[in-house]
Amino acid sequence: MSTGPSNTDPRILFGERLIQLRKQRGWSQERLSLESGVARSYLGGVERGKRNIALLNICRLAEALSVTPDELFRFGEDI
Amino acid sequence: MSTGPSNTDPRILFGERLIQLRKQRGWSQERLSLESGVARSYLGGVERGKRNIALLNICRLAEALSVTPDELFRFGEDI
Repeated sequence: MSTGPSNTDPRILFGERLIQLRKQRGWSQERLSLESGVARSYLGGVERGKRNIALLNICRLAEALSVTPDELFRFGEDI
Repeated sequence: MSTGPSNTDPRILFGERLIQLRKQRGWSQERLSLESGVARSYLGGVERGKRNIALLNICRLAEALSVTPDELFRFGEDI
């Protein structure tokens, strides 16, 4: 716990994790938007921790990134 | 994959997993509602796969159940 981010808002943590997994694939926001069907402007808001993203879109992003949805919730892991 | 539920709608899978974790604790829907602050009627809809629950409520349920949010997404695991 003490080694995690100081901000514990799930929206922030989720956004950070999403950025990490997207960049691991070398994808732009635009690419992830195209692959997932989630609008790019919305995706930007999710990555900035501004959006309370719901289950179906979480699973769309996971599928596009070829990860299981639970991996998007492994906050603070290297990958 | 072949041993999982035939219905792959994330709302169904999430609801099934939530029921599983709630029952593991021996909790009623009412108890989980009280512990999480998520309305019981809404919770019932989530468990029946009728609701597209969002990030903040997912994390509230996980915290109430004393599990990490990613555990709610480990669909098809025994516990």
